[in-house]
Amino acid sequence: MIKTYPTSNILNERQAQSLLAKLIYSIEGISGCRLDETTQAIIVELLPGTAQGPIDDAVERLIAKERSSRIIGSRLYRETEAREDARAGTPETAGELFAPNGAWKRGLAVTLSEQIDRLLVEWAQRHQAQLRSYPSMIPVETLRKCRYIETFPQNIHFVSEFPHRLEELEKVREAGDLNGLARLSPYALSPAVCFHCYAELSGSRLQEPLVLTSRGTCFRHEAAWRVGKHRLQEFSMREIVLFGEASFIEEERRAFMEEAWSLFERLGLAGKIETASDPFFFSEESGKGQQQLMGNMKYELIARAGEDGGSFSIASFNHMGDSLCKPFEVLDAEANPMQSGCIAFGIDRWAYALLDGYGGDYGKWPARVRETLESARMAVPQ
Amino acid sequence: MIKTYPTSNILNERQAQSLLAKLIYSIEGISGCRLDETTQAIIVELLPGTAQGPIDDAVERLIAKERSSRIIGSRLYRETEAREDARAGTPETAGELFAPNGAWKRGLAVTLSEQIDRLLVEWAQRHQAQLRSYPSMIPVETLRKCRYIETFPQNIHFVSEFPHRLEELEKVREAGDLNGLARLSPYALSPAVCFHCYAELSGSRLQEPLVLTSRGTCFRHEAAWRVGKHRLQEFSMREIVLFGEASFIEEERRAFMEEAWSLFERLGLAGKIETASDPFFFSEESGKGQQQLMGNMKYELIARAGEDGGSFSIASFNHMGDSLCKPFEVLDAEANPMQSGCIAFGIDRWAYALLDGYGGDYGKWPARVRETLESARMAVPQ
Repeated sequence: MIKTYPTSNILNERQAQSLLAKLIYSIEGISGCRLDETTQAIIVELLPGTAQGPIDDAVERLIAKERSSRIIGSRLYRETEAREDARAGTPETAGELFAPNGAWKRGLAVTLSEQIDRLLVEWAQRHQAQLRSYPSMIPVETLRKCRYIETFPQNIHFVSEFPHRLEELEKVREAGDLNGLARLSPYALSPAVCFHCYAELSGSRLQEPLVLTSRGTCFRHEAAWRVGKHRLQEFSMREIVLFGEASFIEEERRAFMEEAWSLFERLGLAGKIETASDPFFFSEESGKGQQQLMGNMKYELIARAGEDGGSFSIASFNHMGDSLCKPFEVLDAEANPMQSGCIAFGIDRWAYALLDGYGGDYGKWPARVRETLESARMAVPQ
Repeated sequence: MIKTYPTSNILNERQAQSLLAKLIYSIEGISGCRLDETTQAIIVELLPGTAQGPIDDAVERLIAKERSSRIIGSRLYRETEAREDARAGTPETAGELFAPNGAWKRGLAVTLSEQIDRLLVEWAQRHQAQLRSYPSMIPVETLRKCRYIETFPQNIHFVSEFPHRLEELEKVREAGDLNGLARLSPYALSPAVCFHCYAELSGSRLQEPLVLTSRGTCFRHEAAWRVGKHRLQEFSMREIVLFGEASFIEEERRAFMEEAWSLFERLGLAGKIETASDPFFFSEESGKGQQQLMGNMKYELIARAGEDGGSFSIASFNHMGDSLCKPFEVLDAEANPMQSGCIAFGIDRWAYALLDGYGGDYGKWPARVRETLESARMAVPQ
């Protein structure tokens, strides 16, 4: 069943988009949820048996919240069209290398991810980055410190376990409802790599600027109907995390942004860089997103896939001020909180954008693109 | 407080070891649990405030179960001592590169893992392996198919989430006890890479032998007091998964075992290969472990770390028969279940063993070891 909720007489376009971004995570039992660009109506596809009442309620309450919010737009920083020789491949071949639901990647999709990551590690090492590796699990306590769970409850995944007690483990064998037997562990699944860096440096005093880099798996609780192609519940991120004075953060961030743009162009991809904000779930905190936009705190590199593949962010360039160094007490020589920044690359999405553009037959890719990818070398032991 | 449970008058040595392996996961509120080799007593260190009753009960019940079990030992297949030039480094330097609790790895520990993995990918590709990449999350349904949860409930980690319902997400902001708000998702954290391969091939008919290889993160619910050094809650595994006739599985498994042994010796590590079994939690299923041992279904390559670093498995070589192809319906041309095998390398443990042996100053490592590690090249696109 399809339900349509008009919004054009109550919300402006940006408010309606903001409502949609929250509604997606506010209702269950649906197979789709979108904004009609012409009529500005919210269109929800209900699965058979889904009650309509809770959906009506959620839409009504979110409209009431969005009405009063003032939302500014993104500012364009760079833009490019795809090179003519792109789209030599077909979307079908890409589909054989990437499972639609993210359950597997094959052959070229695997080697591409490695090559892209190697290019990024080389950059990072040219910027004196130290190599790190962190777990997928992160203490809930660490996420509490930066208020992640309260701010993005829609996206968090926790780790649960059976108690290590004999009589309870024995019950698992009979195994009715696991919900009654499992409990939350002290861990969540890491939503970003950089939180681990702050935890590692927590309570330390840095005498000089520091650059760390690590590749890790990041996790998001996604609406099940939305998962596919470039939108996965888990994905591999290469992050470069900067600690220093504000001017150091800004210089490095700009340098990585220019390098990323130059790579993006050499690879013949289509897209843009623009200002962006994080997906704050509660309208009470949407002011933070506006601050990010107004202060150019976050830029995103957005790739445009062919046909109806849509647009998606493949990298972000963030200036955090002292918002994370403060709660983690990462201090400078004078015991003041450091400034920090984070450059994050979605490795799987870079690979997806390339496969979408050039198809699955690597031998037929433009020589220029292959040379760029193959220029990466193994990491130097340090 | 320390509690001592004598077992020498009731159990033989292997039964006592088997009891210990289960007791570790059967009691909480402790800081240690071990078998005294001289007296064969079980020694449990209780944390302040831990009630003694449940621990007494668990020991008593596990003793009653072990009494009747007949346990055979491992058979040695290969053994080697460390080369003289090992232990050029000190354990201290290794400690700076590996966080004791697994929270981070630095510099050389990161590059070593990459180099070891590259060597393994090269082998796998020489054996015509196809590259794969799989998520860390795996459907609970997939694990049910191979009875993992009922068989190893002590080690499983589930993924939990907040419902995507507005009123419940709003409760998170006030956030008392998260246990009341979170629910189990349809996913667990993958305990092994190979289950993903069976899921990918589920329901298919293979006309010829197939070799897949993938690196992935694997997860184990460990007793918190035990986590450290080479024993982590999550670790990176490179697996090579074989599908074919029994003779193909056996030939390939032997070939990888010989190659792994040769690499182990070239790297100057100390240890052995011996028959092994999986850690079945319930004594009702311990017969399966005996079958594995008697049928040489599982071999483990065990590294010995210096001083009191202990011994730990860094690779296993498994012949699964049709035990997994059957439930997943991976069939041959005649619609009979295929035979399968799995070679699994614990990447972090290889790196740990090397750092333990040679220390953190890579420049001082024996030239032979460095040459072996540096012989790995980037993957060839396929």
